[in-house]
Amino acid sequence: MGAETRQDRFERGSRVLGAVDGEAGEKVIGSLADISPELGHQVVAWGFGEIYSRPGLAPRDRQLVTLGMLTALGGCEPQLEVHVNAALNVGLKPTEIVEALLHSAVYCGFPKALNATFVAKKVFGERGLLPVEAEGAASPA
Amino acid sequence: MGAETRQDRFERGSRVLGAVDGEAGEKVIGSLADISPELGHQVVAWGFGEIYSRPGLAPRDRQLVTLGMLTALGGCEPQLEVHVNAALNVGLKPTEIVEALLHSAVYCGFPKALNATFVAKKVFGERGLLPVEAEGAASPA
Amino acid sequence: MGAETRQDRFERGSRVLGAVDGEAGEKVIGSLADISPELGHQVVAWGFGEIYSRPGLAPRDRQLVTLGMLTALGGCEPQLEVHVNAALNVGLKPTEIVEALLHSAVYCGFPKALNATFVAKKVFGERGLLPVEAEGAASPA
Amino acid sequence: MGAETRQDRFERGSRVLGAVDGEAGEKVIGSLADISPELGHQVVAWGFGEIYSRPGLAPRDRQLVTLGMLTALGGCEPQLEVHVNAALNVGLKPTEIVEALLHSAVYCGFPKALNATFVAKKVFGERGLLPVEAEGAASPA
Amino acid sequence: MGAETRQDRFERGSRVLGAVDGEAGEKVIGSLADISPELGHQVVAWGFGEIYSRPGLAPRDRQLVTLGMLTALGGCEPQLEVHVNAALNVGLKPTEIVEALLHSAVYCGFPKALNATFVAKKVFGERGLLPVEAEGAASPA
Amino acid sequence: MGAETRQDRFERGSRVLGAVDGEAGEKVIGSLADISPELGHQVVAWGFGEIYSRPGLAPRDRQLVTLGMLTALGGCEPQLEVHVNAALNVGLKPTEIVEALLHSAVYCGFPKALNATFVAKKVFGERGLLPVEAEGAASPA
Repeated sequence: MGAETRQDRFERGSRVLGAVDGEAGEKVIGSLADISPELGHQVVAWGFGEIYSRPGLAPRDRQLVTLGMLTALGGCEPQLEVHVNAALNVGLKPTEIVEALLHSAVYCGFPKALNATFVAKKVFGERGLLPVEAEGAASPA
Repeated sequence: MGAETRQDRFERGSRVLGAVDGEAGEKVIGSLADISPELGHQVVAWGFGEIYSRPGLAPRDRQLVTLGMLTALGGCEPQLEVHVNAALNVGLKPTEIVEALLHSAVYCGFPKALNATFVAKKVFGERGLLPVEAEGAASPA
Repeated sequence: MGAETRQDRFERGSRVLGAVDGEAGEKVIGSLADISPELGHQVVAWGFGEIYSRPGLAPRDRQLVTLGMLTALGGCEPQLEVHVNAALNVGLKPTEIVEALLHSAVYCGFPKALNATFVAKKVFGERGLLPVEAEGAASPA
Repeated sequence: MGAETRQDRFERGSRVLGAVDGEAGEKVIGSLADISPELGHQVVAWGFGEIYSRPGLAPRDRQLVTLGMLTALGGCEPQLEVHVNAALNVGLKPTEIVEALLHSAVYCGFPKALNATFVAKKVFGERGLLPVEAEGAASPA
Repeated sequence: MGAETRQDRFERGSRVLGAVDGEAGEKVIGSLADISPELGHQVVAWGFGEIYSRPGLAPRDRQLVTLGMLTALGGCEPQLEVHVNAALNVGLKPTEIVEALLHSAVYCGFPKALNATFVAKKVFGERGLLPVEAEGAASPA
Repeated sequence: MGAETRQDRFERGSRVLGAVDGEAGEKVIGSLADISPELGHQVVAWGFGEIYSRPGLAPRDRQLVTLGMLTALGGCEPQLEVHVNAALNVGLKPTEIVEALLHSAVYCGFPKALNATFVAKKVFGERGLLPVEAEGAASPA
């Protein structure tokens, strides 16, 4: 990586953002335009261009860590909605996402696990993924 | 306690859940059916069947601890709503609940105390318990 | 400071509250009247009368600390709304508020910085302060 | 309650602090003397003199709420140590404290429940209360 | 899964705990014996026997979510130490763990990312895994 | 700002870091060298080079926001120690820092305010700044 302009870095981040978050990410950045364009720039250029784009951890693995963090932080439902979508976009299965949020109950307690699971329900509903088939459920004969 | 099936444990928890949270609890479990029935199962079978049902702490005392936790965690308004109801169901007086939330300001600060108190206002309003008579207020002559 | 009654302290706090938070603060206190008038009393008499009124830190500096805390706590959007207004009332410039919330991303991460920034956008919009001119942006020739 | 001086309020709080926290509380206040005597004053005069001293919630009930809050907040082990002591001082049984912290696992997750339980272990050890007899354990014949 | 006794479930959990956390997990359970054996039982029988043992999410994926949660919660350094070890035990590479903690800075901010990274440094040091080779670093010629 | 290499950005951040945090900051970066040099790079190049270096908020104002955030987050005592030092370095008076932490009690509660104040006591002690003269205290005659 040689010398890059501010714009170069933004464009690099934009490509990663588009691949991971799709339109939802762009919409967040757009809504920052009249209040804090610099925050929008940094989410893209740094968050995605500098960190997400690194090769040391697979995109699906990054989303697993992210789901864990957003569930634990609490009060981050808008970001969780973006990242449940992102998790599906990069190849996590609906059952894996649901299982990750069940797993979170052990570490964060039921209230935060429930809040996160209801966000997943909203996203899955919008994408026609409900009902999620219970793990090991018998298929209808 | 001898051998129990998964279903036995769920039923044991359901009886405790019904006694503590009433319909509000069942409604939460129902809304998990198409996204994470296992989370619903564990809230009932473990949370209520294994922990709430233990004899070492009175139900009203469990709700006091729970109100404290949910206020401190923040962002758990939906659960706080269930548990303000639960607190009333197991015998805490409205003035005790309000006082517990005032007390929380000392440890969690005013913003979280306010958020929790406004949840209590919503619940008390729905149950016809407003206004809460100020502690030591003179009754009208 | 000699002997003061409870009412004296409330009145002292009310003057500070009015100067800092304006009507938004009074509205919060008013909404507590039927559920926890004592919490309302203590926010005014203690929070504003005892702490805010102290001379050791300028009002604008208190708001900077407060913006940092409310952003970091998470789930305190209603209070953040009051205090973004308060920050403007005591002389912080819109660009300073936006910059403080950008700065918060370094310590709290992007999700909480975003949540706080969208609260600022709501307040600035209501007060006709959008768009916030980007730092160092060229003025139209 | 008529007119009170700052000193009156401090003394009122000191009596409550002594009854609840004993020497541990006084030691904390003492250690603030050279850095923030005002914070020490406010913990005593406001926290204990204004809030703890109110009649609407029994001292043991206040400690149950407090144990819940300090467990949920996390990173408050020094305060938890003071309040596990306080809980014993105002009449909570060791088994009730242990059960409250077990109960916290449902709402806060295991890590915070474990951190709080190890604080209780330290305090109980210092007061010769270990081992805590398991709930319903058979007494030795 | 048919009828199981309390002991059955504990033994099932113990096998999972041993495979994931090794001796570190058993040591935590042992240290609970004189203060809250029931908490130890539930960590094993429920946390590991009921949740970890489910097939819907790979053990390494569970550790990624867990690292994210423990980093975000803050104040859970003892549990993070157990789980950095667990992450290595179930096949995550040191560089993946380090990258996950770098990734956490985007969502939790630098202070929590730093705290977690220093826990990883302690664990890696004990296991002879330092220095972690920088991503893409040239091997010595 | 034209094209910059990764090294250019690191150097720009290093200059800001040195001016704000002094040796304490460099020590933190150094201790990351064998575990996560990239995290160290990003703290410097992004945190200081991109954000701190922006002109829209004075360095002392950035520290006020930062003290508020670190106090509210909890469990960030090592970072708070660096930033109490930084606050002094950029011109905040000891009494302003102490007052900001007293102010934090209103929003975060006493436990977090106490934890932060004891960090300030440690730093002030090391820098020969104790006792902090109480606001408005009479000088000895």
